[in-house]
Order: sequence, then structure tokens, then C-alpha cells
Amino acid sequence: MSDYTSRARAASRILAAAGDAAKAQALRGAAAALRSAQADILSANDADMIAGEARGLTGAMLDRLKLDAARLSGIAQAVEQVAALEDIVGLEIDRRTQPNGLVMRRVRVPIGVLGIIYESRPNVTADAAALALRSGNAVILRGGSEAVYSNQAIHQAMVCGITEAGLPADAIQLLPTQDRAAVGAMLRAQGRIDMIIPRGGKSLVQRVQDEARVPVLAHLDGICHIYVHADADPAMAKAIVVNAKMRRTGICGAMETLLIDQDYPGAAALVSALIDAGCELRADDMLMELDPRTVSASAEDWDTEYLDSIVSARMVAGVDEAMAHIARHGSNHTESIITSDAAVAARFQAEVDSAIVMHNASTQFADGGEFGLGAEIGIATGRLHARGPVALEGLTTYKWLVHGTGQVRP
Amino acid sequence: MSDYTSRARAASRILAAAGDAAKAQALRGAAAALRSAQADILSANDADMIAGEARGLTGAMLDRLKLDAARLSGIAQAVEQVAALEDIVGLEIDRRTQPNGLVMRRVRVPIGVLGIIYESRPNVTADAAALALRSGNAVILRGGSEAVYSNQAIHQAMVCGITEAGLPADAIQLLPTQDRAAVGAMLRAQGRIDMIIPRGGKSLVQRVQDEARVPVLAHLDGICHIYVHADADPAMAKAIVVNAKMRRTGICGAMETLLIDQDYPGAAALVSALIDAGCELRADDMLMELDPRTVSASAEDWDTEYLDSIVSARMVAGVDEAMAHIARHGSNHTESIITSDAAVAARFQAEVDSAIVMHNASTQFADGGEFGLGAEIGIATGRLHARGPVALEGLTTYKWLVHGTGQVRP
Repeated sequence: MSDYTSRARAASRILAAAGDAAKAQALRGAAAALRSAQADILSANDADMIAGEARGLTGAMLDRLKLDAARLSGIAQAVEQVAALEDIVGLEIDRRTQPNGLVMRRVRVPIGVLGIIYESRPNVTADAAALALRSGNAVILRGGSEAVYSNQAIHQAMVCGITEAGLPADAIQLLPTQDRAAVGAMLRAQGRIDMIIPRGGKSLVQRVQDEARVPVLAHLDGICHIYVHADADPAMAKAIVVNAKMRRTGICGAMETLLIDQDYPGAAALVSALIDAGCELRADDMLMELDPRTVSASAEDWDTEYLDSIVSARMVAGVDEAMAHIARHGSNHTESIITSDAAVAARFQAEVDSAIVMHNASTQFADGGEFGLGAEIGIATGRLHARGPVALEGLTTYKWLVHGTGQVRP
Repeated sequence: MSDYTSRARAASRILAAAGDAAKAQALRGAAAALRSAQADILSANDADMIAGEARGLTGAMLDRLKLDAARLSGIAQAVEQVAALEDIVGLEIDRRTQPNGLVMRRVRVPIGVLGIIYESRPNVTADAAALALRSGNAVILRGGSEAVYSNQAIHQAMVCGITEAGLPADAIQLLPTQDRAAVGAMLRAQGRIDMIIPRGGKSLVQRVQDEARVPVLAHLDGICHIYVHADADPAMAKAIVVNAKMRRTGICGAMETLLIDQDYPGAAALVSALIDAGCELRADDMLMELDPRTVSASAEDWDTEYLDSIVSARMVAGVDEAMAHIARHGSNHTESIITSDAAVAARFQAEVDSAIVMHNASTQFADGGEFGLGAEIGIATGRLHARGPVALEGLTTYKWLVHGTGQVRP
């Protein structure tokens, strides 16, 4: 353990001192290396696919694992986009001059050593490494065993690119998946790994959150709510609700529960629109009366992230009941209110305790790119450090630089 | 457990929505209540002092426990100063308008429920509660058994003041010290307590860091270094070094190790000045030759926070060796370089990985008040969330508010 984490720490010191040009060049080189290693990477991926089929992976899992020329080009392009992001290391975020002449400056610095624990998608190897390096962090990657050959090939190309730019190979380390104890060791590496980011399904995130002694940046659930207030514009409500559920059902920002105000006149149209769009609607008794195609919601439905064409829906008696439902069943991820009443919207946005609280917008905008933050490493629902979409800034911390001229404290 | 943490959560929702005026008035009321309850508080403190003497507490411990009219007035005044601080809850810290018209605003919000675990000083009851409330957080206080009566009396007065202002009593809860399992339960209350701040000696902080599943804001050690570079101004170096060690030896920002460049011409004067000021100087062989009053440093000295009139000191061959020593033995708290060479200072400040890195200033300035941040809850040496002196801002987080006009994601 101490071996690779201390090599990562040493690399992180070099990265922290590396300039913008070196980091950008390293990432452009890594992208070029990914493109020129296409044959190797795709043949490694073939080996993973064959092994995956033999192991009986589902079609969905095989699809997540599969690479082809177009997907690999997309991975390289994503690395180039991260290379083009503005460097925030060294950015001054606060400056105070004290009466005694001391100048206190707060500047952004990398966190240090990041650990990424992920499952079958081999693109995470490139994406996470690129974001870590762009923000000046060393990274320790632990991918899933299904993608072992793909990850090795992608990692090798990335390392090739960054070492050509003069940055250390240890900046991006990939742990062997054969070592089953490695995940547990990473989770307990406090002081040697500074932050762990799990990327994958709920059981992975749950395990990481339960066992980690290292701080974790993650979200467990994305049980996102939309509350349609009495004063919602019906056309807007319908468009947003259908988009929030059905545009892509498998993303964490998809709406999972719909709360309709009892005074909203368009409830029946809203329910029908979702069902017409192909959504199963699990409803409370009041909403069930509006459309015979609804099914009855059970108690667990309110706490379920379907990630599928299913939504739970109920009627509420005003914004207070809506907020109480969200406080009880929500996952602090993303909620939205649809209303023309600015005062009610302001109250909802102030009092709902989620990382992202929207007004008159689809919850599917819960994404770093849509926020203008550039590529995201994930969405965090914890309260400390970074909240909501986490991009480069969330992978940095700060330090205080004090500039004196000989001051002593009286 | 669930009982008082869920009452704290309920109170935190009320506090998060409370305006600046209510919070400021509550704290002014709490300060007034502390003053008018002087007789009760001092007699409760007498009971603690008598019990403490009977239990054989040391003189230093009894002094930390002791209250009198002047000290109590100082506590009330500190609460008034916190009341006068600017409210940062609701402050917009970022705003982005996207091409699709969505406006993303990042605003400061309270963290939620804070846990403070502390030892004998009864002033922490008032200080920590005031800072928590000013930043809109509910707080759960667990003080030391030595101060049980004093803490109860101070807590009672604070609650009196805040409830008169219409804020909930559960905003400031004091746990009974009789319940020995309470500290462990707090440390494992993830999701119910959002952040734990230990205030006390190293063994307390160590236990909290080792056992906590809740995020901890703390520093374990303050092994602060000063590196006197070859180009340091001798008068400045002497003044800063003596101040950094001897002004107050018991604070975490006190210098514990002095690194003198082998090319610095004033080494002997520096060593003598410290010893003349009453400091024991534990030196390497090279420095021992400069003054017969030095004693020989052992290996452990480089990793020791004395909090006393003792300093470890050695000669180094340039800034690289100084930084290597700090990387190996430092505690990421506060370090300072004394030099007239701006380039060397810039390198030191960029590469030393501490929460605070100073140039030509005494490490004793490591304090929230000296940074112009107002009262501090403590100094953090971790890498995430808040670093260095932690005041109101470090007790807040943020959320994203998204303002739309019906946008759906294509």
C-alpha cells in the first residue's frame, strides 16, 4: 500500500508545481496517444468482451464495456476538451490586507492524491485521469475486473502521453484488479489518499461510503422530485415533467417522483402525458382516479430510484406538504418547482435542502456541462467541500499565503 | 441518539430560514442572559472548581476551568462580537447564465447540524454555540465532565437568550456528561450530525479523528517551522523567530522547529537570542557548536509539538532541504520563510503543502482574528472543505439555485 500511495504523493508534488502549459500539453499528448493506440485498445477491449460474454454479463453490462472506433474517438476528444479547460491552480480567491500590513491571500491548490473506484465503463479511466491531472492531482485508479484489459490499454496510452510531456508516470496509476484487497486498502488509506470518488452503481457507492475512512465525494441516490404548484403554466409543466422523466431515464438527474398540487387544474393531463410517453405511473389514490392506466404506489415507491420508465406520483396539499415529502424521501440531489408564483418559488428554493434546487426547469439539467463547469467528475450530495456537479474546482482546495515585511504579533 | 439529533435537524431547518436580524438579536440576547446570570454561572463554576480540586486536577487544568466576573464578561463580549459579524447565509458566490437562458446561482447555506466535543474550558460552550448559530447551524455540545455545572449554567443562559428572540431551544443542545457513550454515538452519527469539531488536547483530537464516521474539522498537531534563508535580514529574523516561539508557547501557531540555512551568517546570534529569551534549544551537531547552552536533539524532537519554551533547531543546505524536512516532519499547519529573496520566497510558498505558508512574518499570526475573519472555531489542517483558520464561512456550504423559464434538456 505505502508503495504506490507514496509514489502518488511524490508525483502529486510535481504536478502541483507544474504549470498550465505542461498539464495541457500532457493531456493533448494523452489524447493523441489514445488515438494512435486505437488498434491495441480495441483488441484489448475485444478480449474483455469475450471474457464478459463467457462470464455471462448482461447485454447492458456488455454495452457499457464495449469500445469501437467512434467511442474511442469520443474518449480522446473528451480528454482534449479537458486539456482546453482553464487552469484554476494558483487562482487567487481571496485577498485581505490587515492594518499591520500583512497581506493574506487564499489561492487554489490541488487536493493531492485522488482515488477513483469504478465499474465496467473503460472511459472512466481516461475521463477521471484527465480531470485529476488538469487540476494538478495524482490519481490512483481501480477499475472493474470486467474491463481489465481495456483499462490497461487506455492507461498505458495516457501514461505514454503525459510522460512525453515531462510529467511523471506515477501521476496516473492503475491498480491491478487481481488484488481483491486493494479496494479496502484504498478506503482505509487516510492521509495517503486525500479523496475517494466512486463511479458506478448503488452497491459500489454504498460500500465505499460505509467502509471509507478517506473522505468520499459521491451521491448514493438521485431521487429527484418535481413539484407542480397550483400556479404552474400547464404547457410548461407538461413539457418539463415529460422531459425530466423520459429524455433519459437512466441518469441520476431523472425525475423519480412527481408531486402535484391538489389545486393544480391540469393534473389529469400531466398524468396522461407521462403515460402516453411510455411511462409507468405509480400513483396515490387521488391520482389513480384521473387515469385508469395508473398503478397503485406502495410505500417503498417513494424511496425508490427507478432509473427506468417508471415514476411515482402523488397529490400534495400545497408547498409545505411538498417540501415535507422531499425532506423525508429525497436524496438531496436535485428538485424542481414549476410555478408562476415567484414568492412560492423563492420559498421552495430557500427551504429545500438539496444540492440543486430548480425553478421552471427540467431536473435533467443536473450536469456539470449544463452548468457551464466543463466536464464533471460526478455529482455530490454530501454537505461538505463540494455540492452538486463537481468539476475542476471541486478537485482543488486552497491554501493561505501570508506576505509580511517582518511583522511580529504583539 | 435519534431523538436529539432529529430535534437538532428540525431546529437547523428553522435556523437556515431565519434572517440576519433574528440571529443577531438572539446572540445579543444570549450575551445579555450570560451577564444577568452571572451569579448562577459563577456559583456553578465554584461547584466545578471544588469537585476539580477534590479530583486532583492540575493547576493548569483548574485555571482553564476557572471563571470569574472578568472572564464571564469576556465570554459575553465574545458572543456580542459574533452577533455583530456580517451574515453570510444566502450570499451569492457564483452566477452563470447559460446560452439556453438558465441562470445558475451558487449561494451560501448553513451546513446543518454541528457537533462540538471539547474539554475543560467552559467558554467553548458559548463561543462554539455563538458561531454555529451565527452561521445558521444547530449545534450539539458535548463538554468535559470537569466543567459540567459551568457548562449547564452557560448553556441555560444562551438558550434563554435565543428562545426570547423566537429561535428554537433545540438550536443549542448540551449533552449530559454522565452519558459516557455519547461521544462515540456522536462520532458515528453520519447523516444526523454533519460535521464534528473537537476542541481540546491531542488525545481528544486523535480519538475523534480515529473513530469518527462523521466528517471532522480539526488539526492534530501544530508543528510549525520557520526557515531562515541565507538572504534573511538578521534583525528581522531575530525578531520573528523569538516572537514565533516565545510570545505564547502554548498556541498551535507557535514555532516548534527552526531551520537555519548553512549560508545564513547570523545563525549564532539567532540561537543565542532564543536561549537568552528563556528557550531550551535542542539542536543538531552543527548548531550545537554555536552556543554551549544548546542541548542535543533526538530523532523524536523533529516530530514533537512542545507547546512550551523548547524549540528544535537544525542547519539545512538550502531551501530544498528545508522543504524536504517540512514535508517529512510538518503537520500541514503553518510555516514561514524569512528571506529578502522574492524568488525563493515564492518557491517556498508554492511548494510547501501547509494550510498557511508565510513570508517574513511570525507563525503566531495563524489565527482567524489576525486574518480578519472574525472569531474562529479552530484551525483545520485537512485538505477538504476548509483549511487554515475556520470562521463563519467554514461553517457553511452552498447550494445551486437554477432559475428557468420552462427549459427542457434537448
